[in-house]
Amino acid sequence: MAAERLVVIGGDAAGMSAASQARRMKGPDDLEIVVFERGHFTSYSACGIPYWVGGDVAERDELIARTPEEHRERDIDLRMRTEAVEIDTDGQRVRARDLESGEEAWTAYDKLVVATGARPVRPSLPGIDAPGVHGVQTLDDGQALLDTLNATEGRRAVIVGAGYIGVEMAEALLHRDYEVTVVTRGEQPMSTLDPDMGRLVHEAMDGMGITTVTGAEVTEILTGEDGKVRGVATKDAEYPADVVVLGIGVEPRTELARKAGLPLGEHGGLLTDLAMRVRGHDDIWAGGDCVEVLDLVSGRERHIALGTHANKHGQIIGSGVGGGYGTFPGVVGTAVSKVCDLEIARTGLREREAREAGLQFVTATIKSTNSAGYYPGAALMTVKMLAERRTGRLLGVQIVGREGAAKRVDIAAVALTAGMTVEQMVTLDLGYAPPFSPVWDPVLVAARKAVSAVRAAGN
Amino acid sequence: MAAERLVVIGGDAAGMSAASQARRMKGPDDLEIVVFERGHFTSYSACGIPYWVGGDVAERDELIARTPEEHRERDIDLRMRTEAVEIDTDGQRVRARDLESGEEAWTAYDKLVVATGARPVRPSLPGIDAPGVHGVQTLDDGQALLDTLNATEGRRAVIVGAGYIGVEMAEALLHRDYEVTVVTRGEQPMSTLDPDMGRLVHEAMDGMGITTVTGAEVTEILTGEDGKVRGVATKDAEYPADVVVLGIGVEPRTELARKAGLPLGEHGGLLTDLAMRVRGHDDIWAGGDCVEVLDLVSGRERHIALGTHANKHGQIIGSGVGGGYGTFPGVVGTAVSKVCDLEIARTGLREREAREAGLQFVTATIKSTNSAGYYPGAALMTVKMLAERRTGRLLGVQIVGREGAAKRVDIAAVALTAGMTVEQMVTLDLGYAPPFSPVWDPVLVAARKAVSAVRAAGN
Repeated sequence: MAAERLVVIGGDAAGMSAASQARRMKGPDDLEIVVFERGHFTSYSACGIPYWVGGDVAERDELIARTPEEHRERDIDLRMRTEAVEIDTDGQRVRARDLESGEEAWTAYDKLVVATGARPVRPSLPGIDAPGVHGVQTLDDGQALLDTLNATEGRRAVIVGAGYIGVEMAEALLHRDYEVTVVTRGEQPMSTLDPDMGRLVHEAMDGMGITTVTGAEVTEILTGEDGKVRGVATKDAEYPADVVVLGIGVEPRTELARKAGLPLGEHGGLLTDLAMRVRGHDDIWAGGDCVEVLDLVSGRERHIALGTHANKHGQIIGSGVGGGYGTFPGVVGTAVSKVCDLEIARTGLREREAREAGLQFVTATIKSTNSAGYYPGAALMTVKMLAERRTGRLLGVQIVGREGAAKRVDIAAVALTAGMTVEQMVTLDLGYAPPFSPVWDPVLVAARKAVSAVRAAGN
Repeated sequence: MAAERLVVIGGDAAGMSAASQARRMKGPDDLEIVVFERGHFTSYSACGIPYWVGGDVAERDELIARTPEEHRERDIDLRMRTEAVEIDTDGQRVRARDLESGEEAWTAYDKLVVATGARPVRPSLPGIDAPGVHGVQTLDDGQALLDTLNATEGRRAVIVGAGYIGVEMAEALLHRDYEVTVVTRGEQPMSTLDPDMGRLVHEAMDGMGITTVTGAEVTEILTGEDGKVRGVATKDAEYPADVVVLGIGVEPRTELARKAGLPLGEHGGLLTDLAMRVRGHDDIWAGGDCVEVLDLVSGRERHIALGTHANKHGQIIGSGVGGGYGTFPGVVGTAVSKVCDLEIARTGLREREAREAGLQFVTATIKSTNSAGYYPGAALMTVKMLAERRTGRLLGVQIVGREGAAKRVDIAAVALTAGMTVEQMVTLDLGYAPPFSPVWDPVLVAARKAVSAVRAAGN
């Protein structure tokens, strides 16, 4: 009999990474591992769903990194279609329901991992539950959307929301020959960028044949006599649709944690210490899309649902559960995306976020190219940089361009982590050869301009 | 009449950047600027020559960022085909020769910039000066090579040397339908990488139809009865050739500086302070391919001929000459290149360099992909990482892969500059989306493995 039992709630990126890492550190004689997963799948790439829907990825199973069977072969007691419905922190036990039979049972734990993920925001609008309205957060969601697409003859798609999921789904549906309309409340698509950079995305989407409606609040999902979706209404207009995709964003799935009295932050996510232990609970860890993370630039907690963080959290939690040591120091807010051949990236703070954090700053925006200007295929890239007034500390970078634009943001992500000033960045020794960069990398050109702006701003 | 005169020796990247920046800071009433350039061109991209020779860049003039006329419009007194032949530091004057007329004259300076560049290493072999043997350091060199290619019917090319220039020229000549043989002394091509990584380049070059002969010292350039090149001989074999390209590397062009008593380092380059002033000379600056730079990882001077450094030097020198302030803190040894679709990158130290610097280290090599494994076109990428024993400080990264491999080295370049440990790198917030990266970026996978190696090595 195992000396200890670990219970994990949620069998996706964070939960299964934690379980796998814990198993690497401790064998089944020392640690029993039980995982409750309410869905049909484990360890899959939710970020890959748009590419599966769009046809770039042929089979759903390609998105699955590890199946339940593979986990079980590693002595992880994985209980699929089983939903945790109550955490009793005093009694160190979890009540879980078998979603097929409806039966419930308590399972005792010595150590608990909460990895319940996030859910798509679903505004309470008339018609929101009509057939043909889809979120794209889980593989089950993706399958349901594909079923609708395959059963629908009409080719009009409306996407509500123009964040990462929205624009990626716009590309996916364009690939499937839909007429795509994106409706957003925002002044521009990609509200994770400043509006001046979002405008570049808007223009590029126009060029791709995607209709983007900005400043438009959806008031109703319109349905036909058959009850199925037939369009989306805003205060000013109606947009006919054979299918509607919700890409408004996600929120932490933390009702269970809330009921158990675990600490939640202002965005509704679980609050942890640096080792990913739930604050005030030495025997409970949490990670992935259900937690808030420290933004190292603003000094505040944020909620960011992203597989790369979830995997890191899982790794750190698994180490901690297994008696090792690791911490997740926080994020700098890096995100990359693409719509067709347009690459979009950001890291750090955009203007509004910097102001909200109490920072005063200058901005510098430059246009350059992804390769030497004379190299075939050289394409425009726009880089916007924010630097703190007086100190010149880098606060954020946004990039919109073609090939080679998105991952350039990593330069700034590392510089932000290291607390560099824009002046220090100007002499960074970045890779240069004509196929890969102008002689001054676009990020350095932006840094030079930011240095001038910092100086001009004086004290 | 101007209050001061700046004389610049050398009108390429460093020299003309310095002149232009000085002009931005001071108008012609305050500063007269005289530039001596021995060649026919100014401000061009020598790094672009292989792409011009290969036909990717159609016209020579595309490589020229700014013509002599454009510089003159900015009140820079640019004297083309004029070679500086003596620097008199006590008298603050430069003797220069008009290469057309042969006339010489002294020009007085208040401030002097030495930007004499580098020249290709030309081993003293029998036949080295035969028609059909070409370096590719200057536009004049490139034009001479193209003239030979256009006048030659044979399609056999031998490239001596397998560094960046060698492999880029291999691609260029392959594009022009030559049978390409690369002959190198090294154990593997790309001796700027460790041999285990160079082997990957070797294998990829095999796959492209490039013959690579390693461990082979060239003993003679073979010539025909017409005096033209007909092949290359090593101790063991002869390689027939209709054209031979020297890609052995370059050395600083510093005879003038040496004769003037300016301080040179162990690699023959000028030694400067951090503001790029020649050590011991308050009125003389130097930059670009003729100087040595501080390697921030090894703590030693290196000679690196690279346009991106030359441009930065020029910028800093021009500021200093104009009464401003800027420094060049040093390099971390970043270099990127490609052969056809193979991308090659390095930063920091490779094994031999780390040992020579007195460092003890561990290595970690991993294989991953440039995008999520399920994303179409996902291609293998190999990352090798060196970390210091005990401290875990990052010492170097080498990457060989396809699209998206080369510029990933920038992540490590910034981390090296910031003095990060591999443990700190594991949680870097790098851009993640399926088209751009697996959920763990390959650089982070390497960092994880390096962390384990550091731990395993103990104290």
